[in-house]
Amino acid sequence: MIVVMDLKVGSEEIKAVESLLMEHGYQCHAIHGKERLVLGAVGSKKGDIPPGLETMPGVVKVVRVMQPFKLVSREVKVEDTIVTAGKIKLGGGYFSVIAGPCAVESMEQLSVSARAVRDGGAVGLRGGAFKPRTSPYDFQGLEDVGLQYLTQARKETGLAIVTEVVNPSDVGRVADTADVVQIGARNMQNFPLLREVGQLRKPVLLKRGLSATVEEWLMAAEYILSEGNYQVILCERGIRTFETYTRNTLDLSAVALAKRLSHLPVVVDPSHATGHWHLVKPLALAAIAVGADGLLIEVHPEPARALCDGPQSLTPQHFTELMTDLDMLAPVLGKKIWRGDEGSDN
Amino acid sequence: MIVVMDLKVGSEEIKAVESLLMEHGYQCHAIHGKERLVLGAVGSKKGDIPPGLETMPGVVKVVRVMQPFKLVSREVKVEDTIVTAGKIKLGGGYFSVIAGPCAVESMEQLSVSARAVRDGGAVGLRGGAFKPRTSPYDFQGLEDVGLQYLTQARKETGLAIVTEVVNPSDVGRVADTADVVQIGARNMQNFPLLREVGQLRKPVLLKRGLSATVEEWLMAAEYILSEGNYQVILCERGIRTFETYTRNTLDLSAVALAKRLSHLPVVVDPSHATGHWHLVKPLALAAIAVGADGLLIEVHPEPARALCDGPQSLTPQHFTELMTDLDMLAPVLGKKIWRGDEGSDN
Amino acid sequence: MIVVMDLKVGSEEIKAVESLLMEHGYQCHAIHGKERLVLGAVGSKKGDIPPGLETMPGVVKVVRVMQPFKLVSREVKVEDTIVTAGKIKLGGGYFSVIAGPCAVESMEQLSVSARAVRDGGAVGLRGGAFKPRTSPYDFQGLEDVGLQYLTQARKETGLAIVTEVVNPSDVGRVADTADVVQIGARNMQNFPLLREVGQLRKPVLLKRGLSATVEEWLMAAEYILSEGNYQVILCERGIRTFETYTRNTLDLSAVALAKRLSHLPVVVDPSHATGHWHLVKPLALAAIAVGADGLLIEVHPEPARALCDGPQSLTPQHFTELMTDLDMLAPVLGKKIWRGDEGSDN
Amino acid sequence: MIVVMDLKVGSEEIKAVESLLMEHGYQCHAIHGKERLVLGAVGSKKGDIPPGLETMPGVVKVVRVMQPFKLVSREVKVEDTIVTAGKIKLGGGYFSVIAGPCAVESMEQLSVSARAVRDGGAVGLRGGAFKPRTSPYDFQGLEDVGLQYLTQARKETGLAIVTEVVNPSDVGRVADTADVVQIGARNMQNFPLLREVGQLRKPVLLKRGLSATVEEWLMAAEYILSEGNYQVILCERGIRTFETYTRNTLDLSAVALAKRLSHLPVVVDPSHATGHWHLVKPLALAAIAVGADGLLIEVHPEPARALCDGPQSLTPQHFTELMTDLDMLAPVLGKKIWRGDEGSDN
Repeated sequence: MIVVMDLKVGSEEIKAVESLLMEHGYQCHAIHGKERLVLGAVGSKKGDIPPGLETMPGVVKVVRVMQPFKLVSREVKVEDTIVTAGKIKLGGGYFSVIAGPCAVESMEQLSVSARAVRDGGAVGLRGGAFKPRTSPYDFQGLEDVGLQYLTQARKETGLAIVTEVVNPSDVGRVADTADVVQIGARNMQNFPLLREVGQLRKPVLLKRGLSATVEEWLMAAEYILSEGNYQVILCERGIRTFETYTRNTLDLSAVALAKRLSHLPVVVDPSHATGHWHLVKPLALAAIAVGADGLLIEVHPEPARALCDGPQSLTPQHFTELMTDLDMLAPVLGKKIWRGDEGSDN
Repeated sequence: MIVVMDLKVGSEEIKAVESLLMEHGYQCHAIHGKERLVLGAVGSKKGDIPPGLETMPGVVKVVRVMQPFKLVSREVKVEDTIVTAGKIKLGGGYFSVIAGPCAVESMEQLSVSARAVRDGGAVGLRGGAFKPRTSPYDFQGLEDVGLQYLTQARKETGLAIVTEVVNPSDVGRVADTADVVQIGARNMQNFPLLREVGQLRKPVLLKRGLSATVEEWLMAAEYILSEGNYQVILCERGIRTFETYTRNTLDLSAVALAKRLSHLPVVVDPSHATGHWHLVKPLALAAIAVGADGLLIEVHPEPARALCDGPQSLTPQHFTELMTDLDMLAPVLGKKIWRGDEGSDN
Repeated sequence: MIVVMDLKVGSEEIKAVESLLMEHGYQCHAIHGKERLVLGAVGSKKGDIPPGLETMPGVVKVVRVMQPFKLVSREVKVEDTIVTAGKIKLGGGYFSVIAGPCAVESMEQLSVSARAVRDGGAVGLRGGAFKPRTSPYDFQGLEDVGLQYLTQARKETGLAIVTEVVNPSDVGRVADTADVVQIGARNMQNFPLLREVGQLRKPVLLKRGLSATVEEWLMAAEYILSEGNYQVILCERGIRTFETYTRNTLDLSAVALAKRLSHLPVVVDPSHATGHWHLVKPLALAAIAVGADGLLIEVHPEPARALCDGPQSLTPQHFTELMTDLDMLAPVLGKKIWRGDEGSDN
Repeated sequence: MIVVMDLKVGSEEIKAVESLLMEHGYQCHAIHGKERLVLGAVGSKKGDIPPGLETMPGVVKVVRVMQPFKLVSREVKVEDTIVTAGKIKLGGGYFSVIAGPCAVESMEQLSVSARAVRDGGAVGLRGGAFKPRTSPYDFQGLEDVGLQYLTQARKETGLAIVTEVVNPSDVGRVADTADVVQIGARNMQNFPLLREVGQLRKPVLLKRGLSATVEEWLMAAEYILSEGNYQVILCERGIRTFETYTRNTLDLSAVALAKRLSHLPVVVDPSHATGHWHLVKPLALAAIAVGADGLLIEVHPEPARALCDGPQSLTPQHFTELMTDLDMLAPVLGKKIWRGDEGSDN
């Protein structure tokens, strides 16, 4: 850590800062400039900023030299983490597509969707039983009945189930059904929920918050790993900006960055990011090109009748076309589109 | 609701849209332009957008004519809601100051802080027992012990207690201690938590999310009111923008706007918004000038030793100076700085 | 255009609005709801919002039914515009790579860079002679001498020259040297400059502003086309968001969107967008995958000695690797990487 | 300056960095940690970052220790700069109100507006003769005729004229009419224009860009001062965020911050910031409370007929009410509302 001080203060203030640093296990080295003093603080194992340091008289700036995340960092683990969950396999060159409706609406709708996305080439089925909605008057999901339908859909199709949990007290129930437990964007910093899914020994898909920096996103993953659950999939789904044409702004540089800073697999959700079905395909292709390890795609058998997020859902036919394009791009990019078994290589 | 359609589609597509609207209780009126058809849909009680409407062939735009919030709206209730909680009284011209440390650290720190802010003129004591922190390795609060200390501080000083809850399963425990239950910015759209505090018959202070629009903020309040709890205090605490000098960007236009759109009282937290103690006083004065009903101010007896957010905490002396300035401004602005009883009028 | 009015106002206010609309050549059709009146205004050729309409008593909302851009719109011209400038050919399936240093620093630096990017496969040479810099104390470009060096570099390599103009009075001089005149992000809404380059009969590359919406970007292009210059290349170079790890946030959904809304070619500048050379390649691949028609890439023979923006420059070797990857991806995406003549097909 | 290096690189890379720093006049002091090396570079007069430093092998981070702005800094000049221009006097406790229509539309409209704002208590008249507009099809101002009307309005009312210049070649003409030359938000980083007004010996009002940081805003002012013109007035007019209810988000913390970092006066334009006349008064009061030195207010005799920005214009009556409130607040805040002469004290 580096502490920059204003030399207008006296030697007493400087000593006070040095004392505080030493209390926290640091050794101090001073560099005197004309107007500023630079204190290099080294040797502490924790590397944290001592509380109160930034407000001490004369302190101009405190700069951290090491990154705040540890377990998720590629400095700690160089090789890609590969996450498998049922038929899903992500990371280390494996690319999986998870698709399905925004919300579970009925057994029939789910069944039709599940078969369509399986036939198209998906290995995972997405679908919300618990839906966080901006308005209390909007459809909030089928809850437990939705979980039963998902279980049934897995039985019918063999697809791995990816579904969201919103309440720490529901984690057990949802994990009983899900192959991958999803944390939504609005809950990325719901720390009790993160700790709870950190207790699971099941993959967790962690969506980036609407206004979360890449560092905060990785720190949220660190919460889960620090509880012992190392199977985390990061998911970029768009951030909130001033642009209003698209629902959110998909940040594909964050995908390349997360892949560089962390060993965890990263998937992209172009459906929520853009809010328009016609932007889903170009951005899905961009996602595999930028280095993503998978996709989350909304597919609805009849988008015009979807209870939520219809405008961003692909029809089964559009989905199949997208898979065809991914199949052609993947080998050029050194990726393998995973179909659930080695025999399915392309 | 208004539906704009492209006249390039045929009459069948138009009929399909009209049918869907009628299924949802609307009557349709059509206005033909050269290239666009405008359908005015009126007469539905719920006024919701039928699922799927936006993706139907030919639909260019769907525009809501009414606001989505109801119970929080000033159209529903014209006069200001006044919230009282212990010595706190907010709204309808009453202005209350709630102050204290970011986190409860020890009984002594809390005791000293509580007496200092009471002597300065605060009627509420803020202090977190449960602290949501970006890093799993940072101090997370004293939890139950912190709640005991807060109870003790109320006994000593008579101040109303304002403290945060982060987990739906803790709402009962926290509400036993708190006079006002706080929902933090990161939890503004934690809907299970909102529903839980909606069951309380105790005031709730709802912080605006880092990237929440004013409409989303009011809709989050609507969740609480729709469960039967009408005592909600809105709190503006800064939004996330590109500016990095300040921790967040305090949005005082949102305060004026929320006061216009809603009958609920609005308070401002300039400490979290700016992250710098020296910006707290000017923005606190701006807050009362713009029409806020109260303030949340971080005060720490020894900011340089605070376990969290020291740089943004006022010393007790700075706090007293701020209160003096507020006392002078209030009568010019038609506000009464509330001291806990009518005899304290200024 | 649609005007939504509050029915609480009297019939006089409604008549006043109707009169204003009729003055501007509209016919009005009214739809009465319970609380709102919807006026559909049709038949005006210009389709503009009459000044003052939005503040008239009773007016709640004014909604435009048609898009504000005309000449740039794909509704006006369905097929892709192909822009050619020297060896550059963009749009309609042709994909060109323009590369070179951020600033022209010396004849030698430019010569080495130009030969390197030509050998790597670029058809255009970028390099600033006039550099807009945040600080008045930073290097501002070699100006006229820089233009001479660019002319010399074209002679040596045959590359088309792309260089920026910042002052309306310099447009003539810069256009004498340049094959493509560049308008930088900070000048996207410098309207006198837009009008001036609109007088040219030479291609203009228009960078999107740091905080410009896609609509504002297209409207800025509309300024140029409305002066008679139809050869405009749009360039996405990242927008400003809260994320600080990257210099800007590259918005690839804007590329897909601009391609859908407009017939103009769109190129991507991943170097300025990310600010880190190691993110340039993944985002360049994502750009071609999302549908871009070309790339602007910073290449410097010795990035560690660049007078500006070194951290985001590729070495000639990295650039050649990128071109190899683009060559492999292009046919899968139905694009042709343009090398300056038909014989160069891949 | 501080350079953080990764100790995984060898001693050669470290020496290379040290050499570059020494070439630029720095002396280096090294502090060795476990994984990182901290180089403190001191002693250079210019204090700039050597080009290329950030990309040298092993360099992890470069941190500037001094602020980049010099002439505008309060470290260079401690006391407030007071700017006077005709009847306007700003800074050092003096508070001036500049008001008038968005655009000059006719002599009559301007005359009526000018007399109304003078009677209300303004000392400056704002009004655009050159209007930057998003669409090429919108009203662009009366240009030279507008300047003549402004000259006439000054003769009639004695008000100081504040008007915008958008083209470097117009600076002379506009400065002949104006008492204060305005640089609009879109031109905050139009560097040729900044240099041109830097040649004037007349006050310049510099609006903050839509997405400019406070540091960039101060650096833009530095351009003007570095050309010898020290009479700069900073103007906060709202930044672009995700919020859509208001036209922009007024950033009053930037006002407090600019006043702390710089000696220049700061004014606030709540009309453009909010876009709604009903938010103008509360935010104007907040502006004086936060420490601003003046206001720019849009007033139109008949807002519903304004050729631009009607929805955000006050009527003369609303303006007079606002002035009454400012008169009451000013003495409490230690400000003097300037009326053009000392006898006008309140």
